[in-house]
Amino acid sequence: MRQLDSILKLANKFSQLPGVGAKTALRYAYSVIDMSEAEVDEFCSALKLAKQEVRFCSKCGGFTDKDVCDICSTRDEKTICVVAYPKDVFVFERVAGFRGVYHVLGGTLSPIDGRGPDDLRIKQLFSRLENCEEVIVATNPDVEGEATAAYLAKVLRPFNVKVTRLARGISMGTDIEYADEATLGRALEARTEI
Amino acid sequence: MRQLDSILKLANKFSQLPGVGAKTALRYAYSVIDMSEAEVDEFCSALKLAKQEVRFCSKCGGFTDKDVCDICSTRDEKTICVVAYPKDVFVFERVAGFRGVYHVLGGTLSPIDGRGPDDLRIKQLFSRLENCEEVIVATNPDVEGEATAAYLAKVLRPFNVKVTRLARGISMGTDIEYADEATLGRALEARTEI
Repeated sequence: MRQLDSILKLANKFSQLPGVGAKTALRYAYSVIDMSEAEVDEFCSALKLAKQEVRFCSKCGGFTDKDVCDICSTRDEKTICVVAYPKDVFVFERVAGFRGVYHVLGGTLSPIDGRGPDDLRIKQLFSRLENCEEVIVATNPDVEGEATAAYLAKVLRPFNVKVTRLARGISMGTDIEYADEATLGRALEARTEI
Repeated sequence: MRQLDSILKLANKFSQLPGVGAKTALRYAYSVIDMSEAEVDEFCSALKLAKQEVRFCSKCGGFTDKDVCDICSTRDEKTICVVAYPKDVFVFERVAGFRGVYHVLGGTLSPIDGRGPDDLRIKQLFSRLENCEEVIVATNPDVEGEATAAYLAKVLRPFNVKVTRLARGISMGTDIEYADEATLGRALEARTEI
């Protein structure tokens, strides 16, 4: 006997989630069978609600359920932290201390995936620079993130705004023995006096 | 700014799936935002359909969308393979060759979780033994699985039916160096002539 169609269909949906393979998807599907009908209904409502309510802020491009997000509507634009994805905003918000606004690019430059400057929200960034003193580029320290940061630094030059990048160095709690050479090289270069 | 409520609610639902922690649940929730509305609707339909359609076979207790599953209605009960969970049936079905029927216990004996013989579908097994020649106990080779097998062997004795257990030994493709002592001991004990 083959697997039941309705289980396979559900597993197929679960396998569209990031990092979920066929076996895990099937495991998730089985667990749904074990849920009560009320729990399954709640799951569905949560799915639909998230999809319906979550929109993108017309200013920063981050997640919001309004037209302009709470951050853009309450903080000034003196410091703008540029991130690649909407979810990155919440990562920075967990670190208490940053009181500026964000700007979501919607990705990073990637010629290999055919993603150029026009596919990112860079023009929208230009329109926010009037009162801005500093743009912090917080893309990942990988090839695409570095390329995006370098590109932003170049195109932001005419705007007379300070462009900074997150410090690179060894992570807190790391073991120097296991730090990779590139990171250790950077950390040496950018050493600070104690 | 805190995370949006609708995203948190959805992540909370995802975290009810087996083995999904808070971070993974949030990652799944973000990926739902990236889906189209049609995809989210399909996801919901698949969830509800699986929950509605999948029932338990009134004979073997396995998954089915009918009253009696395809296996029970087409095969004879000469050989009954006893498994702990409905999903185990599909594992055996993938291994071509077994042509008997299954009987799902709905778990294993576990005094620590308060699961005794009356909580498993053991009486239902008794009622299927009229034409049965062999009961294969295919519970896991762990403490609970072994205890359940031993219990079944004892209570099945009066029924004059052969009770067998899956062979234990080293896995195919395994490296003897890394086999645990219990497994290796079993494999030695049950060695076969070549």
